[in-house]
Parts: sequence; structure tokens; C-alpha cells
Amino acid sequence: MPKLELNENRLFPADPTTRDIARRLYAEVRDLPIISPHGHTDPSWFADNEAFSNPADLLITPDHYVFRMLYSQGIRMEDLGVPLSGGGTSANPREVWRIFAQNYHLFDGTPSRIWHDWVYSKVFGLEETLSAETADHYYDVIDAKLQEDAYRPRALFERYNIEVIATTEDPLDPLDHHAKLQADGWGKKVITAFRPDNVLDPDYEGFAANVRTLGEITGFETTDYQGYLDALIDRREYFKRHGATSSDHGHPTAATADLSRAEAEALFAKALAGDCSAQEAETFRGHMLVEMARMSLDDGLVMQIHPGSHRNHNAMVFERFGRDKGADIPTRTDYVDALRPLLSRYGNEPSLTVILFTLDETVYSRELAPLAGHYPVLKLGPPWWFHDSPEGMRRFREQATETAGFYNTVGFNDDTRAFLSIPARHDLARRMDCGFLARLVAEHRMLEDDAHRVAQDLTYNLAKAAYRL
Amino acid sequence: MPKLELNENRLFPADPTTRDIARRLYAEVRDLPIISPHGHTDPSWFADNEAFSNPADLLITPDHYVFRMLYSQGIRMEDLGVPLSGGGTSANPREVWRIFAQNYHLFDGTPSRIWHDWVYSKVFGLEETLSAETADHYYDVIDAKLQEDAYRPRALFERYNIEVIATTEDPLDPLDHHAKLQADGWGKKVITAFRPDNVLDPDYEGFAANVRTLGEITGFETTDYQGYLDALIDRREYFKRHGATSSDHGHPTAATADLSRAEAEALFAKALAGDCSAQEAETFRGHMLVEMARMSLDDGLVMQIHPGSHRNHNAMVFERFGRDKGADIPTRTDYVDALRPLLSRYGNEPSLTVILFTLDETVYSRELAPLAGHYPVLKLGPPWWFHDSPEGMRRFREQATETAGFYNTVGFNDDTRAFLSIPARHDLARRMDCGFLARLVAEHRMLEDDAHRVAQDLTYNLAKAAYRL
Amino acid sequence: MPKLELNENRLFPADPTTRDIARRLYAEVRDLPIISPHGHTDPSWFADNEAFSNPADLLITPDHYVFRMLYSQGIRMEDLGVPLSGGGTSANPREVWRIFAQNYHLFDGTPSRIWHDWVYSKVFGLEETLSAETADHYYDVIDAKLQEDAYRPRALFERYNIEVIATTEDPLDPLDHHAKLQADGWGKKVITAFRPDNVLDPDYEGFAANVRTLGEITGFETTDYQGYLDALIDRREYFKRHGATSSDHGHPTAATADLSRAEAEALFAKALAGDCSAQEAETFRGHMLVEMARMSLDDGLVMQIHPGSHRNHNAMVFERFGRDKGADIPTRTDYVDALRPLLSRYGNEPSLTVILFTLDETVYSRELAPLAGHYPVLKLGPPWWFHDSPEGMRRFREQATETAGFYNTVGFNDDTRAFLSIPARHDLARRMDCGFLARLVAEHRMLEDDAHRVAQDLTYNLAKAAYRL
Repeated sequence: MPKLELNENRLFPADPTTRDIARRLYAEVRDLPIISPHGHTDPSWFADNEAFSNPADLLITPDHYVFRMLYSQGIRMEDLGVPLSGGGTSANPREVWRIFAQNYHLFDGTPSRIWHDWVYSKVFGLEETLSAETADHYYDVIDAKLQEDAYRPRALFERYNIEVIATTEDPLDPLDHHAKLQADGWGKKVITAFRPDNVLDPDYEGFAANVRTLGEITGFETTDYQGYLDALIDRREYFKRHGATSSDHGHPTAATADLSRAEAEALFAKALAGDCSAQEAETFRGHMLVEMARMSLDDGLVMQIHPGSHRNHNAMVFERFGRDKGADIPTRTDYVDALRPLLSRYGNEPSLTVILFTLDETVYSRELAPLAGHYPVLKLGPPWWFHDSPEGMRRFREQATETAGFYNTVGFNDDTRAFLSIPARHDLARRMDCGFLARLVAEHRMLEDDAHRVAQDLTYNLAKAAYRL
Repeated sequence: MPKLELNENRLFPADPTTRDIARRLYAEVRDLPIISPHGHTDPSWFADNEAFSNPADLLITPDHYVFRMLYSQGIRMEDLGVPLSGGGTSANPREVWRIFAQNYHLFDGTPSRIWHDWVYSKVFGLEETLSAETADHYYDVIDAKLQEDAYRPRALFERYNIEVIATTEDPLDPLDHHAKLQADGWGKKVITAFRPDNVLDPDYEGFAANVRTLGEITGFETTDYQGYLDALIDRREYFKRHGATSSDHGHPTAATADLSRAEAEALFAKALAGDCSAQEAETFRGHMLVEMARMSLDDGLVMQIHPGSHRNHNAMVFERFGRDKGADIPTRTDYVDALRPLLSRYGNEPSLTVILFTLDETVYSRELAPLAGHYPVLKLGPPWWFHDSPEGMRRFREQATETAGFYNTVGFNDDTRAFLSIPARHDLARRMDCGFLARLVAEHRMLEDDAHRVAQDLTYNLAKAAYRL
Repeated sequence: MPKLELNENRLFPADPTTRDIARRLYAEVRDLPIISPHGHTDPSWFADNEAFSNPADLLITPDHYVFRMLYSQGIRMEDLGVPLSGGGTSANPREVWRIFAQNYHLFDGTPSRIWHDWVYSKVFGLEETLSAETADHYYDVIDAKLQEDAYRPRALFERYNIEVIATTEDPLDPLDHHAKLQADGWGKKVITAFRPDNVLDPDYEGFAANVRTLGEITGFETTDYQGYLDALIDRREYFKRHGATSSDHGHPTAATADLSRAEAEALFAKALAGDCSAQEAETFRGHMLVEMARMSLDDGLVMQIHPGSHRNHNAMVFERFGRDKGADIPTRTDYVDALRPLLSRYGNEPSLTVILFTLDETVYSRELAPLAGHYPVLKLGPPWWFHDSPEGMRRFREQATETAGFYNTVGFNDDTRAFLSIPARHDLARRMDCGFLARLVAEHRMLEDDAHRVAQDLTYNLAKAAYRL
């Protein structure tokens, strides 16, 4: 039975000189607190602090990295406990776990394997690798520990040395869990982030109804464009009072538009009526990004733009299981023309920060680094989603650094709802950054003293500064 | 005179720890039989087993990797023995060989150099590197050996330890050589593959005539759309009886389309009449890919899609020398939108396999790995054509593995008509895969035991399974 | 205070075996003369040989790599001494220098850091790294040395072992400095290059006036299309008499077009009248590239094509400070379709050379290497602008070599107006090429003897041959 051991040199380059430098750099950032400025954990976990239910529900069923891979090899999502749209699941958690364990080899060479092994070893103290043979042992050990107080969300939060974590909510969310957390004496920092796609994007399911609800919540007449803007401003303030320091925008493209008032009003009316063409919806979304930037100038929220995913590519899966089921596929994404309306208006504002993400790695060296290496408002977010991985991080640093430097980047985002693996993800990023810096030092392209400073900044200071935490 | 020596560590990473791991992995896959599920060897070689004619005709003139490079440096194709369209060549084979030898330095750093050196050393036992000085010696040695029985196609096939090789034929091919091979007592597995571009693509030279001939061969009325479909079904069966387990599709793009019956019939009529616009031809080809997928559900042929080459880019060369003369240039290729019609209809079918190839490396991490890491029908073919090279293979594994894993890939294709170099190509792929795995092991991202299993699967099992051999 | 030391192994791979090979290769190319066939130094420096004014004016204010990075972090360009459009600057050079020094960490991991450190150490003999603390010391040392004869342009040119340097001028330039240099007894080779964008591109500021001036200078009636062509031919001859061996073309895209005479005349008339649509301007520029190729067949000038920059992306910066202020952003660039009109007409001409550059690295393996590995007229220029960097060079060799080889590339261009750093840039390129070759040797993909030859060719022979120097 192969031992589960996390080698202390994991993820560092193999060359001994480079590895030694990486070890020295890592030793000084390993234990820094976790800043998690963008992610998708459930605030109710921290507000209510209830025990997690069972290994499959915690580690398999909600993790689209995991079930997409299993699905790609012909395993039915029903058998993995993924609930049907508007329905539930009848899958037995232990059976789900066994399927995962039998197929753990599918994750060879993927970050999921690295994250999961970390959780099994560091959190649950398991000492053999996961396999068909060890499946039940794993299940039993994890299931039992989840009932212990030391494995409740707050205990793990503290054990994980998380200084601040941001969740993501849409404007219609009442933020009750955040309110409860603020009222509570726990004292740990769990903040929200403002994700208004469902009231900015005419193509979003239920857009008009969402805008109406936004009006009801805020007391503004949102069928009127000015009322709609006022409601958004009001809601941003509400989010700020619940800790938000950033907004987040997940549009299909990076398109921005700077419409006249009359054009914006006309499009908004069409959007509410459900009459927008695809192009008009794109224009309206793009215009609203410029409006968001304008509001950010007033209220100080940092903008995050996460474009370029073709959501719900698999029609059958969407119909049967709903959104976020591993069928979102990246697309080629333009930034140079797309962002120009936003940048022409606000690109030189010293008080605005816009953090750009991408699923299209070709833009790192061609578009994003040149843009961020010029415009004062722009910063580059870390490698995102499919690229939140060792090779993805290496490519990002190799392709962005020479033009944008380190100081136009913002440290790491874990971007995850997989709470248990958050330290694994930050640890992976720290190791990869130290490995990259070590190569620069070994090749005499950087002084080791400078690399120590940069490692600390990438791990802690840049995220704190960029997100205004 | 520099020695020709194939170092036992060639193509492995230089770092000693990583290299040692690579050596251990390679030692266990080096001697596995060759599975060659996609290529372009001439079945008559194996059916007739005649001696190859001379060194230039065997190794230079038919190899577009070779003559395109020489042509790029101003050497006339006539002088390389490339025959004129509908004509022959008056080039003297020894003179052709000398030109190649004098210019062998042009291939420094290219896979052609690696493949050729392997052939010279391993097959012909040459001990000095090829150069102007050794040109005649090479010519004489190779020319003499080609007349020996041990250098006839079947002897080399056996010496090369080929378990199965697929050739590629179009639907109008009578498959006489395959029939002869089946009737023959040789017992080695030479199978065909169904490549119907010339009867699916309205832009293919002679499309209407080809469809008419298809009707004559099969006895169906192919001027009628239903008869055309029936003829294709019939011909696929005929190919299956000659060993085919796959179809292969080399369209300009990856576009697919799912037309209504009436739309398909109308376009088919226009195509036969030669009246299709460029867009209509694209739509018809795309529709026929969906039809091919439907037929595959019935007959089990694995689909291969090889899109994205701008064929015959050099008009003068095409006019003078015809197709496949080194003037095919890759183009930017979209898969996310292009494949959606096919995937919406058949993407979740457990019994269908579609293997995707690309000439546009930007899609590995952005499109292909995310698609293959989700859809059950999709698998990723190996790096193709210009990317069938050490760096190309490294990029493929680095960019595809973290999202698609190893088990959504299908092992290696040599894709070549250069029969003599087939083991060199497989050996190169095995070495590069072992080197990649070795890096993962050296960086503690993978256990060495797991890497041994993956190396075996990449070398042998995955190709056999994916191609249903 | 950290020491400023240029390690003798800088930029070489860390693996000891590979590094030793790189050292051996580099030892034989380190001292070869500099061939600088494409750049932007000011010919008046060499013609007049006046002392450079001060450290900031020489090293900071004119270097858009430097001030774009500082600007991206919120530092005002006014404070960096960048002159306002049509105005001057009131910034104090020592203050500018201090700002740069305080922010030198922004350049960690960038080529600017490597180039600047080389200049400080090798040219000015500084022994501590630049920082807020050493800013004034640096300023004083450099400022004093610039007044010494040994730091005048001609002395540095000789000390730098420059065999030939090309500047870049537009057709309206009288080339007085080159004339003075030719008449002068200095005897060093400073040549011009013909950069006609301002009279070929209808969208260029002042196009019609420029064409009129071209007529006045040459004595041709340039309001007439034939007169315009004749004037261009005449001016190319004038440039040739001042040493030019190449033309250079910096269009927004790589589009070429092969219009009929009547179409060309009609578009030219519209262009002069300022009536071209964006598409018509694109077509006219593209047509003129084909005309330039035709003229090159007659006069032998090598064509350079530098496409794909979105110039002046930041409207505010353009309005306030003018062109070339760090706000040019690369765009996705197509070559396969774009170059086809040019290549269909002249792609097989043995006497023509067209050197292609790109800001879109995705085309190296997909488009440029396949094109250059086939067409006799095409060669690949070195990594350009943002990609003139260690990682950029590595990617270029890794992605282009396997298909185009080394011999369809043309050595290094420094492409700079930062005269003092020219040897640093060539040294960086030599080291990176040697490191790449060393890896091929260490992995037994190339013989070390061959690598020595290639290193020499990449450093010296290929540039001389391709640019006909």
C-alpha cells in the first residue's frame, strides 16, 4: 500500500542549486497568514459553525474539478451524488466515495490530486494513498473526524491561520450570515464581495425579475434607469457595510462600452422587456462595467473582471443538473479593444483599481502584461480556474513578469468553495512562486535578497494592498 | 568526421535526478510493441513486399518535412526529385541525396534530424554523421542494403515490432492491398482507416464526380441525399471488413452543424451542382461530421478530427507540383463554438469516441483540455504534424495534463508515410513522455509507481483502447 | 548596501552540465563584433559626437520601457521629465533620477533591470546596486563621466565593438547626419533604413501632406499614383546611397493586398483626399507592401514587417504627451491569410528577402515557423519589443526551431534608441541562444560541434547575410 507522504520539497525545481534557493525563500513565507480576497466558501459555515455532513458531500459532490473529470470518463453524475436540477440525489455517500477512490488515478498530474492529498495527510492524518483498497478506511476516518469539534468550520479557519476570507454574493443576497458574523464575538474576518452579474447582464436567467427584486430590497424604482443606478449604489454601500472591498464581474467577454445616457436608458428598457439582441446585451453589460468603475471611484470598491467562460456548454447537463456542473469552457478573449472604452474614461485614475483575470493564457504576454505595465488602474489577478495549477502558475510568471513586473500583480486567490483545501492551494502558490524566483536567482537574473522581499510581497502584502484589506 | 552515435540518454532532461527517473521509466516501455493507429504508409508495401527503390526516393522525395525546409532555403524542388503535377522527375537520385547531405545542417534542432539519424544508425548501421563528405558513402550503403531481403517492408515491419498499423484510404479506394493482405498468410495486422474528405467536402477537387463514383461502387443512388448517406454507411462497413476501426476527417476548421433534413438535402444538391458558397460548403462539411458521428454510434468507428490546416497556401507550388508539397500552413482554430452542434447532439453518448487533434497549440489549455476533461465522447490526440516534436510534446503534456489528465489522451500517432522512421518517432514520444513524468516525480507531484503505470498506458494501452484495437 | 556584480554565469541554465556547455559556447561568441541591423539610435549622436546631457535625459526619459512601468504604478509622467506634446518639461533631472532609483524594485525580473545593471557596472564602473540610498551617488558618477571624452558617442561606439549599426528614418528625412558621417573620416559604419509608414499609411497623421512633401523632395508629381511610385523608387535609391540595405514597415496588421492598377489609383486618390474608410486604408497599406516587395526585387532592399501594435491605446496619454509613450499594446495578429497576396505574387522569388516580426507569440509555432520553413523569401526576425527578453527569447527558440530551423532566422536586433545598453542587449541574446543550444546538446539532440557553429551564425553570420551587410 503506497504511503501518503507530502515531500518537503514538493513542487520545487529538481535542480539542487535552484531547489535550495527555493527552500530558503519558502521557509520565510510558509507560515504567513492566509489572505483569501476572492473565493466562494459558504458564509453560513462560519456563521453557524455546524459540522460538515460526510466525506462525499464535503469533498466530492460540490467540487466540479472532481466530478467533471469522472464524468469525462463515462461515470454518471447521478452516481456521484450531483443533484438533479430542482431535485435531490439518492446516491449513497459511501458509494460516491468508492467511485472516486477507484478512479483516483484519473487525477494523476492534476492539481486536484495535490490539493486532495494535502487534505488527507495534513487535515485527516491519513498515511496511505487513496485507492479502491483504502476507500472505506478513508471514508470512516474522515467521517468520524468531521463530527469532532476540531473539524468544524471555525476550528479549521483558526487552524488554517486565515487572516481574512472573502465570500461572493449577489446583490439580492440579504447577507444574513455576514451580519450574524459581525454581531458575533468570534472576531475573525469573513467579508463579502459584490457580484452583480444577475442584475447587470440581460442574458442572465431572470434578469428582469432580479432587477425588480433589487428595487424592492433597496426601495428604489429600478424600472427607471436612474433608479436602477441608485439601487446599485445603495446595494454596494450595503455590501461595504458587510465588509466588501471589491466587486466581481463574470461576463462572457471583457467588453466594455461607454454609452450616452439616452443610449443606456434605451438599452436598459429593452433589457427589462427581454428584447435585447445578443449584441445589445453585450453592449449593455459592457456599459455597466464602466458604470461600476464610476461607482468605484466614489465608494472605493476594487473591481475584478473574470471574463471568457462559455458557461453551460453542455446543453444536456445544464438542463438536467443546472449551472456550474463542470461544463464551462474557456474561450478566446480579447482585452485590448474590449477594455478600451473603460480605460479611455477611467484608465488613468489614481484611485481606481481594476484586477484582470483570464482563461486565455495567450493574453498574458500579448495583452495583459503590456496593459498592466502601462495603465495605473490595472493589476493582474493570479492564474484562474483551469490555470490555478503548477504549470499554469509557472506560465503566468514566465509570460507576465518581464513586461508587468511583480508589482502589477496581486498575489494569490484561491477562488474556491472547497474550504478544506484552501491552505493546500495557497501552499501550492507559495511553492511555485518561490520556485520561479529561485530560478531567477540561480540564473543570476535577480538577487536572493530581492527574491526574499518579492516572495513576501507575493504571499501577503500585494493581496492586502490591492484588495484594500 | 563526427561519429554518429545515439546517446542512450537522448531527449531526457539534463538534471541527473530527473534523468535517472526517466531512464527507469523508459526501460520498461522501450521494448513494448508499436501500436500505430493513425498513419499514411502505403499498404502496397506490405501487400507486395517489393524492395524499396533507392535512398532518395525512399527518404527524401516523399518527405515534405525534408523538402519544405530545403525549398525554404532556395533549393528548387525539381532538383530534389519532387515530381511535377501529372509529370515525373528527371532528377538523379544520387544528386538529390547529395543536395540533402550538403544541407543537413538546416535540420539542426528539428525532429527530422533525430528521426533520420535514428534510421541511419539503427537501420543501416552507419557510423559517421551525414555531410557533404559522407554523402556518397551513405548513398552506397543504403542503396545496397535496400536490395537485401532484410530491408523489404515485411522484414522491417517484423524487426520494428509493430503490433498493428493503420493506413488511411478514401472511400473510393478499392482496398485491394488490404484484401490481399487479409488473404495472405503473413498474419501481421495492417488495417485501413476511413477518410472521406473527398466525398464530404464540397470544396474538394472533383467532389461531385467523387460522389458519383461512390454511387457506382456501392450501388446506391448518390445524387439523392438518402442514397448518399446509405452509400457512406455501406462504404464504412466495407472499410470495417478491411480492418478499419476509425474514420478520419481533415476539414479546414472544426466546424460542425446539425441541419434539418430539408436543409441538408438542399445544401447537398447545391454541392453536387457546384453552387455552394464558401460558407455553405463549410456548413455542409460540418453537418456531415454530425452525420459521421451518428453513423459511428451504429457501427462503432472511432472519429478522428484533424482540422485547421490552410492547404496549398503557395499557389505556384500547388499549380506546379500539386497537393501535399510542404505548403500547408496551420491556422487559428476554434473548437468551443465549432464543436457545439456535434456535442449538443452526441457529446454525452457513452459508446461514441471522438479524438481531437490541432495545429493551434493555444487551444490545448484553453479549449481542448477543458472540453476533453468534461465530455465523455472526447479524447485528445497526440501533438500533430509540426508539433510532433520534442518541444511540441512537452508543451502538450504541460498544457493539457492538469485539466484533462493523462486518461483523456490516446497515446502516440506517428501519422507518417516515412515508414523507416516509425520506430524513431515512437521512441521519441516514449522518451519525451518518460521525461515529462520524471519531472513530475522529481518535483514530488507524482509517485514513481504511478508514473510507471502511466508510462505503460501512454505507450501501449491507451492507444489500443481508444482506437478499439 | 548590496554589491552590483554581473555574475559570469548570468542567464545560463542552472543545471551544471548544461551550464558548462553554455559557457563553452558563449566563450567563442562573447567577443564577436556587434551587428545591429535594426534600431532607433539617433544618427546625430555619431555625426556630431557631442557629449550626452545628463543621466536622466540619457537613461530614463527617452526609455518607454522604463517610464511605462513607473507610470503603471501611479507616478506622473510629468515628474519623470517626459515632455508634453509640443512643450517641454520642467522636471529636474536629479529628481527624475531619484524617483527611478526609489522604484528600481519595480523592474525585478524584467530585462530593463538586466540592461541597466550592465550599463551601470560595465560602462560606469558602479559597484553598488541602484536604490534610494545610492541614487545621488549614481547621478554624480554618471553625470561626471558623461562629460569625459571617453563617454561621447563615437568613443562608446568603438569601445562597444560595433561593426555596423542601422538607424531608421522616414522618406522625408534629408539624411543629413548620414551624409555628414559618410563625408567624415571616422570610417565607422552607420547606415539608415527606409521606414515609409508616414507616406504609405492613409491613417498616419498628415499622410496627404507627407506625400506632397515627398513630391517636393524628389521632384515627382506625387498627387499622381505613378508619380507617387516613382518618388518612392527614387527615395529608396537615395536611402541606399546613404547605406540602407533594408526597408521597414510598421503597419497595424500584416495585411497585404494585390490590387489592380485601377483599384490602386482609386484608393490612392481617396487616401489623399482623406476619404478612406478604415478598411480601405488597410487595403491600401497592404497593397503598398506588395509594391514595396516589387521595388525590392529591383533595388535589393530587404523588407522588414513589424505588425500588430495597437498604437496610442491610451487616449489621454496620446493627447497630452504624443506618440511612443509606452501606451502601444500588442494585438492578436494573423499572418497566414494576411500575407497570402504578397506571397502569391513574390513568395518564390529567390532574390527577395522578407523578415517577419511579431508581438503575438502564439504565431511562432502555428504560423511563422511553418511559413518561414517553406517560402524561400521569408525569414523570422528575433523576438521583438516586449518579447526581447530572456523568457521571450527562450519561447521563440523553443517554438520556432523545430519547424523553421535556425537558418530561417536572422540573428539578433536590438531595436533600441537606448544606445548605452546595446551591448547589454546583444550579450543577453548571445547568452540565451547559448543556453538554448546547450540544452539541446545536454539532451543529446544536437552535437556540441554543431552548436558552436550555430552559435556563431546566430551571433554574427546570419544577421550579416540576411540584411546584406
